[in-house]
Amino acid sequence: MATQVVGILGGMGPAAGADFVRLFVEACARQLQAQGQRVQDQAFPEHWLAQVPVPDRSGALLSTESGAHQPLEPMLQALGRLAALGVQSVAMACNTAHAWHGRLQARFPQLELLHVAEEVARALRAEGVSQAILLATTGTYQTRLYDEALARAGIALITPDAAGRERLMEGIYQGVKRGDLVLAQRCFAEVAQDLLARHGAQPLIMGCTEIPLALPGAPGLAGQRLLDPAKYLAQALAQRAYRQGPPQMS
Amino acid sequence: MATQVVGILGGMGPAAGADFVRLFVEACARQLQAQGQRVQDQAFPEHWLAQVPVPDRSGALLSTESGAHQPLEPMLQALGRLAALGVQSVAMACNTAHAWHGRLQARFPQLELLHVAEEVARALRAEGVSQAILLATTGTYQTRLYDEALARAGIALITPDAAGRERLMEGIYQGVKRGDLVLAQRCFAEVAQDLLARHGAQPLIMGCTEIPLALPGAPGLAGQRLLDPAKYLAQALAQRAYRQGPPQMS
Repeated sequence: MATQVVGILGGMGPAAGADFVRLFVEACARQLQAQGQRVQDQAFPEHWLAQVPVPDRSGALLSTESGAHQPLEPMLQALGRLAALGVQSVAMACNTAHAWHGRLQARFPQLELLHVAEEVARALRAEGVSQAILLATTGTYQTRLYDEALARAGIALITPDAAGRERLMEGIYQGVKRGDLVLAQRCFAEVAQDLLARHGAQPLIMGCTEIPLALPGAPGLAGQRLLDPAKYLAQALAQRAYRQGPPQMS
Repeated sequence: MATQVVGILGGMGPAAGADFVRLFVEACARQLQAQGQRVQDQAFPEHWLAQVPVPDRSGALLSTESGAHQPLEPMLQALGRLAALGVQSVAMACNTAHAWHGRLQARFPQLELLHVAEEVARALRAEGVSQAILLATTGTYQTRLYDEALARAGIALITPDAAGRERLMEGIYQGVKRGDLVLAQRCFAEVAQDLLARHGAQPLIMGCTEIPLALPGAPGLAGQRLLDPAKYLAQALAQRAYRQGPPQMS
C-alpha cells in the first residue's frame, strides 16, 4: 500500500504556508500513531509546498476592476505544476483564496481541492456546536465562505460589524503581513473580546491564516476556544495522503 | 528586477523541513526590511518545498551495503523535479544528507546547491569564533562534514566521545523522529552539558536539523549560545532569492 502525494498551495501569506506544513506534518504523525505505525521520516507521505506570489485576494474581491491584479491565474499555474508533480489532493493555505475554489477545482478535475469551510463545518457539527464567531478578512465575509457550509451544518455564524472588520484587516495587513505581531494581536483581541462580551462564550473561528499567527495567548482571551481552520484542513489532507492505507516501508 | 525561484529539499525529517520554510520566510522578511522594502505577501520570492521519503542517511553511511536503501536516488529525483520547476538555488534541510552534496551538485550543474557547513563556517569566522562544539549524527561525524569547512575558517571543532554520540542518536531517533521531545531534550542536554563542563563555554552547533526542535530551553543551558545551522542556510537561500535585486511589484 502506498501513500498518495499531496500538495499545499501557499504564499498567501508565506508565514501561514510554512505553518500549514507544520500542522500537516503533526497531523500525519497523529495518524501514524492512531494506526499503531511507527513515526519515522520514511512513513510520511510525499508532499509539496508551492509558495508563489499571488495578488491580494481581498483586494481583488473588493475591486470592481479585473485583469492584472487577479489571483486566479497564478493559483491556476501553481495548481497545474502541483498536478504535474503527481499530487492528487491539494489544500490552499489561505481562507480568502477559497473564493476561487470552484473555478480552480473545475479546471483540475483530476485533483481533489479540499475546502477549508467544509472541514470546519464537519468538525463543529460532530461536536454539536450550534453557534460560532467568525474572525476573517472582508473578502471572506463578502463571499460568505463560511456562511453556507456552517448553515448546512446547523451552525449560526456571528460576525463583527463594519468597524470590527476594519480592525481585523488592520491586524492582518499592518500587523501580521508586515511582521508587527503586537499590533496584530491587539487588533484581533479587541474584536474578539467585543463579540464575546455581546454574544457570550462561543467558539472563535480564526478564519484567516494570519490570525492564528498572532491571536493565541492574547490577554483577556484565556479559557476561550480559538479554532484554527488550518488544523482541520491539515488533518483532512493527511487523511487523503494515507487514504490508501499505511505507508509502504522499504 | 525579478526574484530568483528557490527550492528546499526536505523530508529529512519532515518537521525540520517545515521549520526550514519558517526560517526562510523570516530571513526573507529581514532582507526586505534591510532593503527598506515593504514586507507583503507579493514581495516574497517563489519557493518550493519538496518533502520526499528518503532512506535514512546515517544508516546508509554506516552500512557497508549498497542498493535499495541508498538516499542518493530519491534526492536526485526530487532535485530534478525542483530544477524542472525553474528553481535556481536549493537548500537541503538535513545536515547528514550533505554527505551526498558533491554528487548531487555534479548532476545538476545548472543549480546552486548550498552547503550548510560552508554557511556556518562563514558566519562564525566573521564573528572571530575560534572553537565550537558540534552536536550531530554519527553520519555527520563520520563524513567530517563540518571539520574541513570549519578548519578552513580557522575554527577548532569539539566533538563528543562514542557514548555521547550514541546518546545524541537516541535523542534524534527515539526522541524527535518519534515525537518524544522530552526524551530528545534530555539526551541532547546531557551531551551538551558534559562538553561544556569539560571545554568551557563554547558556541554549540546544533548540526542535525532535529536538535533545534528539542534542545532550546533545556534546563542547565541558559546563557549558552546554541547555533542553528538551518538559520544560516535559510539566510543564504534568501540572499540567493533576492540576488537579482528587490522584487518586482505588480
